[in-house]
Amino acid sequence: MNIGIIGLGLIGGSFAKSLKKNTNHMVFGFDIDGQSVDLALKDKSIDFKLDTDDLHNIDLVILALRPKDALRFVKENKNIRGWVMDLCGVKKNISKELENLSSRNNFEYIGAHPMAGREIGGYTSSLDDLFEGASIILTKRNIPNEILDILSEMGFSLQYCDADTHDRMIAYTSQLSHIVSNAFVKSKVALKHNGFSADSLKDLTRVAMLDESMWTELLLENDYIKDELDFLIDELKKYSDLLEKRDEKGLELLLREGKERRILMYPGGVK
Amino acid sequence: MNIGIIGLGLIGGSFAKSLKKNTNHMVFGFDIDGQSVDLALKDKSIDFKLDTDDLHNIDLVILALRPKDALRFVKENKNIRGWVMDLCGVKKNISKELENLSSRNNFEYIGAHPMAGREIGGYTSSLDDLFEGASIILTKRNIPNEILDILSEMGFSLQYCDADTHDRMIAYTSQLSHIVSNAFVKSKVALKHNGFSADSLKDLTRVAMLDESMWTELLLENDYIKDELDFLIDELKKYSDLLEKRDEKGLELLLREGKERRILMYPGGVK
Repeated sequence: MNIGIIGLGLIGGSFAKSLKKNTNHMVFGFDIDGQSVDLALKDKSIDFKLDTDDLHNIDLVILALRPKDALRFVKENKNIRGWVMDLCGVKKNISKELENLSSRNNFEYIGAHPMAGREIGGYTSSLDDLFEGASIILTKRNIPNEILDILSEMGFSLQYCDADTHDRMIAYTSQLSHIVSNAFVKSKVALKHNGFSADSLKDLTRVAMLDESMWTELLLENDYIKDELDFLIDELKKYSDLLEKRDEKGLELLLREGKERRILMYPGGVK
Repeated sequence: MNIGIIGLGLIGGSFAKSLKKNTNHMVFGFDIDGQSVDLALKDKSIDFKLDTDDLHNIDLVILALRPKDALRFVKENKNIRGWVMDLCGVKKNISKELENLSSRNNFEYIGAHPMAGREIGGYTSSLDDLFEGASIILTKRNIPNEILDILSEMGFSLQYCDADTHDRMIAYTSQLSHIVSNAFVKSKVALKHNGFSADSLKDLTRVAMLDESMWTELLLENDYIKDELDFLIDELKKYSDLLEKRDEKGLELLLREGKERRILMYPGGVK
């Protein structure tokens, strides 16, 4: 199969590396940054530089771009045929638009979201094992087995749901974590934490280091993040109110509810 | 030196194990739960069961108890001499009371807080390497070298500050993390996260699994946690407001501030 990867940043680069490591398919790479393409060719993470005039020869086009850029690329390249898979972190709006384009332009659309990332971006941060053991959310069923096999060979576990459910879940599991982490570091004493902190602070603030331009787009594209954030703010206020009232019984109950919920979330326990 | 450990739970048990592993001192153990003492004797994590009538023969009494229990123990045992070190997670109030008791009862007081823990408690969760590389906050200077050497041999790095600074820093670095983590799991979709989540969710919710009774006491004993929590709530509201207004520029700026702050917090970078 000829696979074209559009965008050789952290995710696209890792896709290319993982494909070359785990499968025998031909990988073509495209990036507006020529240096990333050169590095990927040198690494043998891609077999060829992709010329957009040849897109009709690509069986699977993987859009490793931000939502707006992904849409623009497909609109500008009407010679895309075969399968198109976007890897955007939001799905509801973009999948509607790409579905529409797919029937008009004669390609098949698959919405996908690999649940893996790093705090540092760009091709030079990409890894051949970034997706090993990660899940990939697919918003389409009836995907050809050949494509599903590729994802499985790359180490993904497959998770299906519709685009709306995707955005609702991701608002909580990923986007809210990033906002909380990003807000948490703003305490007036944060910079003095050395010697006073342990893993809990490091873990909680890890994803504060994000690409603010990409995340602005992802957050504004998700219809559910504001509700999740407001829900969390209301929950946090409960602790504050009980501290204010010095309500020992109430605070203990609230903390127990959280503990019990966490145990249910990870029934096998984690470290 | 004869070292007595009062309370053989996660922290006291780990102290005993680490002392036996890394030093040649005699370790005496006391716990109201006889089973923990038996297990510690069997493990050789302690050399002897401590009889409170013999406390005057102990050179260093380590209180691995909650604040109220630690105070009660010292009040009830007027035969304590030598050095007394409490390991409580709050310091401002307890250190004042223990200082007062120390001049009345003829012992020397050291306030200490080892920055390490686990999500599971009790003697059976204790580890001989729990403190390796962790910092221990000391609220007293002029501690005899023999005691400082013991802490260093156990793998601690030493951090000095006054009790008030301790509580102010810990409110942020530890207590706020626990509250946020404990609140974060309460989302209506939390239990459905499987297949939709990655390390960021696991990391962020890890310390939600806490001992609610101990944490209730610690939170209510810290004069600074409510301010830290309210500050965070206000910060989170800023993201919510910008999402509401769909203010792209403002959101990007807010996210960039968080990213830059996190980079300053861990200048060497973390994983």
